[in-house]
Amino acid sequence: MAEVIDIVDPADPRVDDFRDLKSADRRPDLPGRKGLVIAEGVVVVQRMLASRFRPDALLGVDKRREDLVDDLDGVDVPYYRASADVMAEVVGFHLNRGVLAVARRPAELTVAEVLEGARTVAVLEGINDHENLGSMFRNAAGLGAEAILFGDRCADPLYRRAVRVSMGHVLRVPFAQLPQWPGGLDMLRDKGFQIIALTPSPAAVNLATAMTGERVALLLGAEGPGLTEEAMRATDIRARIPMSPGTDSLNVATAAAMAFYERVRTS
Amino acid sequence: MAEVIDIVDPADPRVDDFRDLKSADRRPDLPGRKGLVIAEGVVVVQRMLASRFRPDALLGVDKRREDLVDDLDGVDVPYYRASADVMAEVVGFHLNRGVLAVARRPAELTVAEVLEGARTVAVLEGINDHENLGSMFRNAAGLGAEAILFGDRCADPLYRRAVRVSMGHVLRVPFAQLPQWPGGLDMLRDKGFQIIALTPSPAAVNLATAMTGERVALLLGAEGPGLTEEAMRATDIRARIPMSPGTDSLNVATAAAMAFYERVRTS
Repeated sequence: MAEVIDIVDPADPRVDDFRDLKSADRRPDLPGRKGLVIAEGVVVVQRMLASRFRPDALLGVDKRREDLVDDLDGVDVPYYRASADVMAEVVGFHLNRGVLAVARRPAELTVAEVLEGARTVAVLEGINDHENLGSMFRNAAGLGAEAILFGDRCADPLYRRAVRVSMGHVLRVPFAQLPQWPGGLDMLRDKGFQIIALTPSPAAVNLATAMTGERVALLLGAEGPGLTEEAMRATDIRARIPMSPGTDSLNVATAAAMAFYERVRTS
Repeated sequence: MAEVIDIVDPADPRVDDFRDLKSADRRPDLPGRKGLVIAEGVVVVQRMLASRFRPDALLGVDKRREDLVDDLDGVDVPYYRASADVMAEVVGFHLNRGVLAVARRPAELTVAEVLEGARTVAVLEGINDHENLGSMFRNAAGLGAEAILFGDRCADPLYRRAVRVSMGHVLRVPFAQLPQWPGGLDMLRDKGFQIIALTPSPAAVNLATAMTGERVALLLGAEGPGLTEEAMRATDIRARIPMSPGTDSLNVATAAAMAFYERVRTS
C-alpha cells in the first residue's frame, strides 16, 4: 500500500512536481524542463499504474484515495493527501478530478519494439495538436491499432492535455519516433507492412479496397496541409475515405478511426 | 452586393446582435433570449449564405470582406466593416477569424421534411455536449448521412460553439425534433427505416452485419450513460462496433462516423 502523507501547506516542497500545472514556463510536463508525465483522475491514474510509466507520487483528496485502494496495493509510492483547496493552490486551479499521479519519462521504445506483433499501426506527420494526438491514441486503443509512430513535426504525446484527451491510452498504446523521415518508413516495409497514405484526393483508391496487407501502416497528415508530397511518394498506395462533395476533410483522429475500424469491422 | 457600413464606435447599436458573444446571460445565441445564429470565419459564413439560415448582417474586417465579395454578390444585407480592435470591443474578445454573420432562426423543419429522400440518419438521445453535437454534424456532412433527428435531452445545435465545431455543417445538414420519445421513432419505421441502437454491449450484433436496411436510422446516446433502456427497446436491433477489451467506448461523434462510414465505404 502507498504511504499516505498529509499535505497541509501548499508550499510544501514534496509536492513540487504537481505545481503550477497551467504555467506556460514552469509547468512540470514541459519536455525541455522536468518533462514529467501527469495523469489526472481515477481512470487515467489506474491506466498509468498498469503501464510502463510508473508513478513516483500521487496527490489527491481522500475520497479518490479510497477509490484507488485496490490499484495501489503493493505500489510503493507516497499518496500526498490534501484538501481540494490545498490541491487547488498547488496545481494553480480547481481540479475536479481530485487526484493526480506523476511519472518520470521512461526510456523511449524503439521502432522494432513497438512493431513487434503489430498488425495495424498509424504513422503521423505534422500532427501538432495535442487534442488530436490524444484522440488518435484513444481511437487506436479502442479499435485495436497496436502502435503509433511519429514521423516528422508532431507534438509531444505526453503533454498533460494529450494524456487527458486520450483517457490515458497514450500511456498504454506503444509509440516510437522514426529516426529518419520519410526514409524511416523502410523499417516498416522491411517488416512486411503495406504502407498506405490516407488522403482526401479523389484520385486515390477507396480505403476499403486499398488495405490488402496482412500488416498495414497508415500515414496520416494534419488537417488542411495533409501529408507532404515527399511522404506520399514514400508510400505503396494512396487511399481515400469516400467523402461527400463540398465538405471538409474529416478530423485526423476521426479519419484514423475509420481506417482502424476498416481493419476490425468484421471481427 | 452587400452595403458596406463603417463602424467606428464599439457602442454603435447597429452591431448589437454581435455584442458580448461570450457573456453567460447576454450572449445573442441563447435560445430563451434573442436565439440568434452566429457564423464565424469565411468558410462558415459561406456555408450560412448557401443555407436556409439567411444572415441579417455581417460584421468583419475589410480583408475578410474582400474574401467574401463573390459570395455576397446579390445578397442584400449590410456588411458592418470595423477594425479588429473595434470588433474585439463589440464581441468581447479578439476574434481571429475576422468576420461574423448573424441570422434569425428560420421555422424548424418537420420530421417528414428532413427524412425526404434520406437513406442514413442519426437519432440522438441525451447528447448535451455542444462540441460532440458539432462534430456529429461535421461527420454526417462528410460521410453522407442526410439528416439528424433529436430524440430527448439534447443540447441546442445552433449554439455558437456547435456551429463552429461543425464547420458550419449544422446549417446545411437538416435536423428536426421528434414530437415524442421514443414513440416518435414510429414515424421513421412507417417510412421504412431500419432502427438500430448503437451500443458497446458485447451481446449486440456486429455493426457491419446489423445494418441491412435500405434506409437506416442510427440511435446514439451520450458517452457514459448510453441509450436509455426505453429507447433501446423501441429499436429493431442492437449493434456494436468491435472494440478492444479494457477500453472506453468511443466518442459519440466518432462512433457515429464509423456507422456513417459503414454505409458508404464501398461507394
